[in-house]
Amino acid sequence: MATTTTGKRPLLSAGNLMNALLVFVPVAMLMEWVFHSPPMWIFVISCLGVIPLAGMMGHATEEIAERVGEGVGGLLNATFGNAAELIIAIVALRAGLFDLVKASITGSIIGNVLLVFGLSAMVGGFKFETQRFNRTAAGVGTTLLVLSAVGLVVPAVFHSIVGNSAPGAERNLSLEIAVVLMATYIASLFFTLRTHKHLYMGDAGAEEPEGAYVDHAPLGRSIGMLVLATIGVAVMAEFLVGAAEATAEMLGWSEIFVGVIVVAIIGNAAEHSTAIIMAAKNKMDAAINIAVGSSIQVALFVAPLLLFLSYFIAPRPMDLIFTPFEVLAVGVCVGIMALVASDGETNWMEGLQLLAVYIILGIAFYFLPHGGPEAAEAATAVGAAAGGH
Amino acid sequence: MATTTTGKRPLLSAGNLMNALLVFVPVAMLMEWVFHSPPMWIFVISCLGVIPLAGMMGHATEEIAERVGEGVGGLLNATFGNAAELIIAIVALRAGLFDLVKASITGSIIGNVLLVFGLSAMVGGFKFETQRFNRTAAGVGTTLLVLSAVGLVVPAVFHSIVGNSAPGAERNLSLEIAVVLMATYIASLFFTLRTHKHLYMGDAGAEEPEGAYVDHAPLGRSIGMLVLATIGVAVMAEFLVGAAEATAEMLGWSEIFVGVIVVAIIGNAAEHSTAIIMAAKNKMDAAINIAVGSSIQVALFVAPLLLFLSYFIAPRPMDLIFTPFEVLAVGVCVGIMALVASDGETNWMEGLQLLAVYIILGIAFYFLPHGGPEAAEAATAVGAAAGGH
Amino acid sequence: MATTTTGKRPLLSAGNLMNALLVFVPVAMLMEWVFHSPPMWIFVISCLGVIPLAGMMGHATEEIAERVGEGVGGLLNATFGNAAELIIAIVALRAGLFDLVKASITGSIIGNVLLVFGLSAMVGGFKFETQRFNRTAAGVGTTLLVLSAVGLVVPAVFHSIVGNSAPGAERNLSLEIAVVLMATYIASLFFTLRTHKHLYMGDAGAEEPEGAYVDHAPLGRSIGMLVLATIGVAVMAEFLVGAAEATAEMLGWSEIFVGVIVVAIIGNAAEHSTAIIMAAKNKMDAAINIAVGSSIQVALFVAPLLLFLSYFIAPRPMDLIFTPFEVLAVGVCVGIMALVASDGETNWMEGLQLLAVYIILGIAFYFLPHGGPEAAEAATAVGAAAGGH
Repeated sequence: MATTTTGKRPLLSAGNLMNALLVFVPVAMLMEWVFHSPPMWIFVISCLGVIPLAGMMGHATEEIAERVGEGVGGLLNATFGNAAELIIAIVALRAGLFDLVKASITGSIIGNVLLVFGLSAMVGGFKFETQRFNRTAAGVGTTLLVLSAVGLVVPAVFHSIVGNSAPGAERNLSLEIAVVLMATYIASLFFTLRTHKHLYMGDAGAEEPEGAYVDHAPLGRSIGMLVLATIGVAVMAEFLVGAAEATAEMLGWSEIFVGVIVVAIIGNAAEHSTAIIMAAKNKMDAAINIAVGSSIQVALFVAPLLLFLSYFIAPRPMDLIFTPFEVLAVGVCVGIMALVASDGETNWMEGLQLLAVYIILGIAFYFLPHGGPEAAEAATAVGAAAGGH
Repeated sequence: MATTTTGKRPLLSAGNLMNALLVFVPVAMLMEWVFHSPPMWIFVISCLGVIPLAGMMGHATEEIAERVGEGVGGLLNATFGNAAELIIAIVALRAGLFDLVKASITGSIIGNVLLVFGLSAMVGGFKFETQRFNRTAAGVGTTLLVLSAVGLVVPAVFHSIVGNSAPGAERNLSLEIAVVLMATYIASLFFTLRTHKHLYMGDAGAEEPEGAYVDHAPLGRSIGMLVLATIGVAVMAEFLVGAAEATAEMLGWSEIFVGVIVVAIIGNAAEHSTAIIMAAKNKMDAAINIAVGSSIQVALFVAPLLLFLSYFIAPRPMDLIFTPFEVLAVGVCVGIMALVASDGETNWMEGLQLLAVYIILGIAFYFLPHGGPEAAEAATAVGAAAGGH
Repeated sequence: MATTTTGKRPLLSAGNLMNALLVFVPVAMLMEWVFHSPPMWIFVISCLGVIPLAGMMGHATEEIAERVGEGVGGLLNATFGNAAELIIAIVALRAGLFDLVKASITGSIIGNVLLVFGLSAMVGGFKFETQRFNRTAAGVGTTLLVLSAVGLVVPAVFHSIVGNSAPGAERNLSLEIAVVLMATYIASLFFTLRTHKHLYMGDAGAEEPEGAYVDHAPLGRSIGMLVLATIGVAVMAEFLVGAAEATAEMLGWSEIFVGVIVVAIIGNAAEHSTAIIMAAKNKMDAAINIAVGSSIQVALFVAPLLLFLSYFIAPRPMDLIFTPFEVLAVGVCVGIMALVASDGETNWMEGLQLLAVYIILGIAFYFLPHGGPEAAEAATAVGAAAGGH
């Protein structure tokens, strides 16, 4: 479901670039704590700082996963695969920025599928006329994506029907749907790691020769790296979330645009590079697993987990009511991915089409009026009232 | 399209359980006519009484169908396959309970696909890693499902556009769409029973040895059983519909929840058990034909027929305007079924996903405010008015 | 993407019929310029006059395309394939009839897929039990259709969210989406004419023997025919658009119904006959390329081009905000086509189902209240206001 392939060598060279980005981590700390720089600069620099740290977390998780054996390792990857996004979301959750949290969930789902897999299929398609992958595994993935979309659409439609007349019912509905989503996620781990794991080995398992195992990093170092990177991401997330609102205002961007596009791209930068590298090596099974798997993990694991956490750490419980446009974006993304994946092959044109859909959605999120769904609703109500006279 | 396989031996054992449920038929009669019991108990007992009678009707229909030859027999199965649901709906129609009628149509469509086929694929998937079925036959079925969804979505969207300003146009629209749906259903019978019938033989025809034909019940007994069971269902339906409103009120359930979830499960209990038994024997063609075929029959035959009948037996003509949430449920159900069926194979995870979607929709129907769409509309309008100030 | 196969002989006989229709061209001129006949008659006669002229344009374009070589020829076909529709739309654009322009775009998209391909699959299916086509080419086509649908859905949903509060943002959104759609179209030409052109040769290239090339018309004659036919279409379009409003009023039809159903059928009559002839000869690749290709061309090339042109020749810039029902129609059409195309084969029942969907949508467009979306919105607002008290 998550990045089960490490692809050692290419990651090292990409890793060098990643390591260079680490310089932004201390810079961000200086700007926040010492110089009290303008929020926009803190936002940009801490965004750049998150990228290498998220990569380090992913890398360390995979190294630990390889050492502790297949079953637990798969579980680790499945649970910590999107840890960077989770941390950013938790910080935003504590600050009560629910619109930002939900927007980053939406952005992660559509970003992984449309941007990451779209770029992968396009880059891979420039080198190979047609790229093939296991249709059964991809089919289970896209069905889970549809389930994710249902989980997000149902509360939103419910909200559009009942209006603001039943907040209690809406909270219960969100909570129970989150339980169903989480339970399905756990069942899907059982599917991918136990009953049907051969579907997910693909070309990845065969590649690595036995000898390659000797140059594994020591377990202690990996754990240390994971702890350090996690702390680093948490600090950067505090800066980033703290500066997000002021930055959005300064640039004339809505909170939703920041969450859907900016935060989502930052949090998934590591997956982006890995998936594209895999596609360029014609390992489309790995590329699709990373992209679709990451979307599924966010929708079925991160989103319900955040909802559960909101009962303990947020100012008030969060619900799963996404804005109509987020629902549309997820629905469109799931529909087109199901279509692209259904024949078990991709070409550059299909990749480009996914990207085109991402761009169209991005443009629309950019132009959406500021101030979240409440403002939009008010605007509609005013329009309706004006039209009624 | 409907249950063309009898699967003698397993049905006998399931039949024993079914026969035991027959005891609830006289109990319900006593409670209604002699003891005037509280509505909730009458509702529960007559629901339980419907299950074996519906099974008997299906069984008798199949036995008659086998005797009268393939063509007429197929037609019989296709017409009387959902007779129990039809009878319940007719009783509700005469009482003018249009919300309940439409909700039972919705519930039958989503119940057969998500619950029946979901359970079938899951139970079958626990025994067999991958189960295969004929993609062409399944493809025609899912396309008919999409057509069904279009037939239900179009009047609802029309209604949401024109509001209450054009009741006459809406009635005509519903009537003409019903004609198109019914005509398509008749054409589909021609397809399944005549031009492409080999697609639907599957593993079913091959199974039964010639010698098995000797133990058929006499035709007279089958017809007698069909008549008796039909009368029984009609009586139980009267009790059930009469007690539905009071029961829903007592339990705090909406009429729509009762129709979508409770009545639909009762009416399809026989199909449920047959489809699951077929899947457990790895006869996925039969399982998918029962589940999808039953949904199609309800959408393209039962729904238009009820609309036509409403002009003669209901207080006023019924329309095909389903509530937004029913439309969403049917749309979601059709979309995920198309995806699951498209690759011609299932596994337990896909079955579980269908069930998860059913549970999510069921939760939402449970929480929907009582009193049908009108109440919801009023609530929205109030909300909008409050927001406009 | 467009009609790359001429299918000489059958077109000649169909051509004779076409040539007979040419008589309506001078008749329309007489009625408009000399007799000042009632608008309804001018509308009908100029509609009939457009059909053979559009056929001539298509024919001449193909002949020129064959002479100038594959690359430029493919480009010509791709650009002028829907020239007749483009000319009608430009005339309506200059007159500021944006509802009619958008309705003819919608009608062209759904008409080519549901009516043209539906009829093709049904007629072909009566002769051949199962007809097969290249799934990869059809898959790219349906994905482009989904992209088209996204391009039309996003502005409409945006509009439904922001109401009339942000006309500037809506215009910019439409313009930028149009740029993305047009860029994708250009990329798709690169795909079909350059990197993956072998997918689109199909059975068409193989059919024509080398000797057939000798009876090509001289290039000069083809160009002359193209110029003449274009002028003819432009004149007929002026008559047709000028008389459309009065005709619609007289018949009690809405402007949208005229655009979606009438104008779209007229403009695509030539494609209709060619696609059906191809299907009857079991050349489903050609039939699907004509139908889906024409829809894509309208959505990704004609629609953006009209939007760009509106900045120069229309009373005010056009946007891409389609009415909710047009969005539903395009969405439904794309969804069912994706399903039908996904297995790479069709039968008469699938064709009939596409037709049934077309008929249902047509009925709904017929019953929609007159006066475009504004009137409908007003009606809804009134309804909501009434419900609120």
